[in-house]
Order: sequence, then structure tokens, then C-alpha cells
Amino acid sequence: MRATIMRHGKLVVDEVPDPTPAPGQLLARVLACGICGSDLHALAHGPRMVEMTKLAANDPTNPMTAEIMDLDRDIVMGHEFCCEILEIGDNVGNGSVGDIVVSMPILFAPTGLHPIGYSNVAVGGYSELMLLSDILTMKVPDGLDPDLAALTEPMAVGLHAVRSSKWSAGRSAVVLGCGPVGLAVIAALRLEGATTIVAADFSPSRRQLAATMGATEVIDPRSESAMEAWQRVDGRSPVVMFECVGVPQMLDDAILAAPRRSQIVVVGVCMEADEIRPMVAVTKELNLQFVLGYEPAEFQEILQRIGSGALDVSPLITGRVGLDGVAGAFVELGDPEGHAKILVTP
Amino acid sequence: MRATIMRHGKLVVDEVPDPTPAPGQLLARVLACGICGSDLHALAHGPRMVEMTKLAANDPTNPMTAEIMDLDRDIVMGHEFCCEILEIGDNVGNGSVGDIVVSMPILFAPTGLHPIGYSNVAVGGYSELMLLSDILTMKVPDGLDPDLAALTEPMAVGLHAVRSSKWSAGRSAVVLGCGPVGLAVIAALRLEGATTIVAADFSPSRRQLAATMGATEVIDPRSESAMEAWQRVDGRSPVVMFECVGVPQMLDDAILAAPRRSQIVVVGVCMEADEIRPMVAVTKELNLQFVLGYEPAEFQEILQRIGSGALDVSPLITGRVGLDGVAGAFVELGDPEGHAKILVTP
Repeated sequence: MRATIMRHGKLVVDEVPDPTPAPGQLLARVLACGICGSDLHALAHGPRMVEMTKLAANDPTNPMTAEIMDLDRDIVMGHEFCCEILEIGDNVGNGSVGDIVVSMPILFAPTGLHPIGYSNVAVGGYSELMLLSDILTMKVPDGLDPDLAALTEPMAVGLHAVRSSKWSAGRSAVVLGCGPVGLAVIAALRLEGATTIVAADFSPSRRQLAATMGATEVIDPRSESAMEAWQRVDGRSPVVMFECVGVPQMLDDAILAAPRRSQIVVVGVCMEADEIRPMVAVTKELNLQFVLGYEPAEFQEILQRIGSGALDVSPLITGRVGLDGVAGAFVELGDPEGHAKILVTP
Repeated sequence: MRATIMRHGKLVVDEVPDPTPAPGQLLARVLACGICGSDLHALAHGPRMVEMTKLAANDPTNPMTAEIMDLDRDIVMGHEFCCEILEIGDNVGNGSVGDIVVSMPILFAPTGLHPIGYSNVAVGGYSELMLLSDILTMKVPDGLDPDLAALTEPMAVGLHAVRSSKWSAGRSAVVLGCGPVGLAVIAALRLEGATTIVAADFSPSRRQLAATMGATEVIDPRSESAMEAWQRVDGRSPVVMFECVGVPQMLDDAILAAPRRSQIVVVGVCMEADEIRPMVAVTKELNLQFVLGYEPAEFQEILQRIGSGALDVSPLITGRVGLDGVAGAFVELGDPEGHAKILVTP
């Protein structure tokens, strides 16, 4: 089969062997797969990502150690996928041939636990075929466009961030950064009933999308800071701020801007070492909640909400490419003005 | 009156004018005042402390802006005091002449809100006399030694840290650093019913005090890490770790050592910029709760617990000096092996 492969820090299209489903696995054809900002980071700064993953894996309370990718060998990225099941392995009781499914991007295999898309074993969605864990697949509601279903994964990240936070109905929220992560948080806040959502981004097109997804105050930080806008439209403490940019200095800026006893939910993944001023956070008694991924129930809930039409993710899809177009799409996504989500349709 | 004054980065004993109580204030004679690690920091790194205080004061939701000290003018430090009331101002309905009292270290004055001990207006406890806010004073239980009552303030810090955390009865806790802050956290955990408290410090005498105050596993990080010890005696996640050292790199070390989904309560005040690796915290979904000070009810509760004998703070008092001995005591406290709490008895 053909796949877009990360090989020695570059994306190349090449032939790789067709995968064969082990017991508990499914062989699936990729219908659509979103390109994630983390994939851009992995391509540009792979060694740093691997180093951080190794540091975080050092946890004796967590026996579920997953594979850590080896950048010297081929990796097929892509963890936001919607697939059609082509073939089922032994001991499969969930998926059936012909089903259109999504799945949390983890492959249970005889060789261990593999993070689909950041693995030398489990091929991701930038390919024609891939393997899925039968018990993790969820059937896409009848009639739902696979392109929309592919956005279940990134949107579930937003729901998990909101559910992990101290935000509660009737409170306002502040979202710093309106890339795909920030947009997912905005959409989730709206699903959860938020009526005041202040969102900030330098990019006009991202601000436009933030408003489309449900932000009620959308501001350009060059003219008004997020916290000034929040103060203007609400100002009741404590407030929950969602940091969705994930570059150095954002966290310290958020700490400096945060009102006393507020919470900063760190959703953007800053993969570099970063400097903060702890005494400022101490003086204000801030709470920092770092979040990652989602629970299976959150993933399932987002899929249903997209299926029912309660969550319209179609505005987020700003481009489509084939396997040959992935490398170019990575370049285009470097410009925040151009795109939100580009789908790969192999 | 005589006082030990911070003047141009040095401690000098000199005469200052006797204070006069304004309405709502009390004039009090200092019986005992503890020396706090923050005072050592203020003397050694005053400009940095002022800079951080200014950064943290920038909060439009908090109209209670307190005075920020000017290091070019005299400051009398000391915010852990027990006093005898000598004279009452107008509109005073709480304190009476002759009462032995403690107080949260804030002075309400016609000139605003002054943090006692870090102020050019409100003289702290390294002096013969000081002013107190009548409504903040609490009468010391009959028969309680003023030296012990003076430890209400630092011990309340520990109770507030525990009450602000996710720790709950039946869970173990880890305390990193057994200086006065760590010892206060250990004592508070014990008061709250903790039965497994792992405490770590490089200093043998501090480890001894940690055991005295209620730590159940006391370890030298050179032979076993705090988290290895916790794993050995409990190991049930999520765990609450109390960071009570407050020097650069402690927070990142705690993030690297923390099990998935645990909480790090930042009680030690690191006054310098500090580097962390956010992706490690993201991957483990850690929660960081920064804490400062205490609520009035917590302060009152600690005073009562010291008074009833439920909390024995006498082991923490390792030295006593007069006003002339403060400068020397600051030097001695630089060695963790020598002392826990030195009281100034003017």
C-alpha cells in the first residue's frame, strides 16, 4: 500500500507492506485523516518530542508503558482518522466488515501498546490501510460524512479539557489561542452550555472561526488583551483560562494576566523547556491543570454530538489533500491565516 | 523604641519613633516573633522580591491593593508575632489592654493596607512595639506561652496548604523539604488525620524534626527518592506532593517524579524565574496548586490547636535572640542543620 512516511525528518510517499490484523485487531481503509499540530511539531522537532515523551514515561504507577517511536526508522503519522473496516482478525466482537468507524489512536498488539501515528509499528492515517484495536473502535452514526467523523479526535480533546477544569455552567471562560485546539475548547464550552466565551488570537481568520464555533467575544490581543475583554464582559472571579497555544512564554504570560485564585488549563502542548515566575502564581494562589487526550466516554460523546448535528465541525475543514499533498499541507499549516484543519483523503 | 531595621540591605538596631494607634488599631508590645525564611530572602534578594510582588499585584479583580515596600527606606520585618496590648485606639471593640494576642500580619490604616513586616509604614515584630488591626487580633488561650503562640502564623501556612489541596483522609502525602514550611505541612497533615506522610530532606536534624512533627517515613534523598519511598509504603495514585523547598529546579524535579494525574502543591516560594518542562506535566495530566498564607478561620484554628496541646510546636523552637541578635540569627538560619525556628524576644 502507499503511505506518506516520516523518514529522517522528511515526508515521503512510498510503498509499505500491507498490514495484517492480529487477534483483536481490524484491517481498515482510511477514508479521511486530519493533520494535527503535533504532527507538524514531530516533523520539525522530533528528537525533542521523543526526549519529552521518555521523561514523561518514567512513572512506576503506570504499568501501561507505550512504545516510544524511533526517529531513525519509518513512521506513518495521522491519529485523527475515520476508516472503513475491510477485514477482521480473530477474537473480534465489536467491528464488522463494511462498518465506518473512528477509534482512539491506540493499537493493542502482541508486541505491546502502540500510539497510532507516533509509532514504528502502528501505521497512522496518512496511508491507504491501517490496523485498529477492535475494542476501541466506535461505529460512526448512519449517514455521517466520514470527513466530519474524522474530527472526533481533535474535538474530544476540547471536551476533555473542559471536563477536567473547574469551569461550571453559568461561568465565563477565556480561551487563549484559536488554532484547532482552542477551537475544540470553544466548541466544547458551547456544548456544555457556556454563554460567555472570550477568545483571543492574532489571526483574523482564526478569530472568524472562533466566532463561528461559539466564542461570544473574539479579540485581537494587539488591541485588547483577553483579560481586559473578560473584565469588560464579566469580570467575576474565579475564572478558568484555557491556554491553547503551547509555545514558550505563553504560560508565564497567562500567569501574569490571571486574576487571583483563577485556574489555567494547559491544553496547548509546549514541547520545549519553558520559564515561569512561580512567586507570581503563589501570590495569586493559581491552579494549573495540565490536560491531555480524552476518556473513551468523551470520545464517544463527541462522535454522537457530531452525528446528531449538535456539533457542526464542517467550518473547521479548510482543505483536503491526497497522500502526495501531505508534505505541502504541512507547509501551508505553518501559516495560521491559511487553514484550520486539512484532511488527508488517501 | 528600639527595632532591628532592614536598611540598605543590612540589619541594624536603631531607635525609631513609637507608633500611635489610629482608629481601629492597637498598640502592642512584642513578646516573641519568629524569623521566617522569606525574611532571609528579602534581606538577600529584596529587589527581586519587590519585582515579583509588583508583577503579582497587577490584578484588576482585586481592589485590595496592598502597599509594596520601598527598599530605599527603613523596613522593620517580622510577621510571626505574639504581643501584649498596651493601648487601644478609637473604635476598637475586640482587643483590651493587657490581652495577649496574635494577628494575621496586615495593618488596616488610613493610608491603606500594609503588609506587616514588609512595609515602610507598618512596623513588624523585630521591634519593641508595633501596631495591630483590632479586627484581626485573636486572643491567645489562657496560659499558653507566647513563644508557642508566635508559631500560629507559620503553622497556619501548613493548614492552608493542606486544605487547599486534593489530599483527603485515608490518602498518603509526600512532603518535599522539611524546613519550617515543610514541618508546618507535616503537622497540618497529622492534625487532619494523615497516617502515611513521606517526608524528604538532606538535613539529618530536619529529618529528625519531621519525624517529631508526624512524618511516618523520613528519607534522605541521597539514599532513596521521595517517590520511591512513597511507592514502597503506599503507591496508590493519585498522590498529593507538597513542594516546600522553593528554590529553582525543585518544581521541574517534582513534575518529573510525579505519578500520572497527581497534584503538586507549591508551598515553598521560589522567588526567581524557574524552568519547567510543560510537556511532561501535560503527558501526566498533573495539577499544580500554588498556595499562599491562610484564611482567618485557619489561623484561628491553629491557635486553638496549639492552645489545647493538640499541636505541640515546642520542638520547632531551636533558638532565641534579642533585637541585637537578629542579624546573627539570619546568618545561622542559612545553615539548615542548625535551626528550625529562632524567636526574637525584644
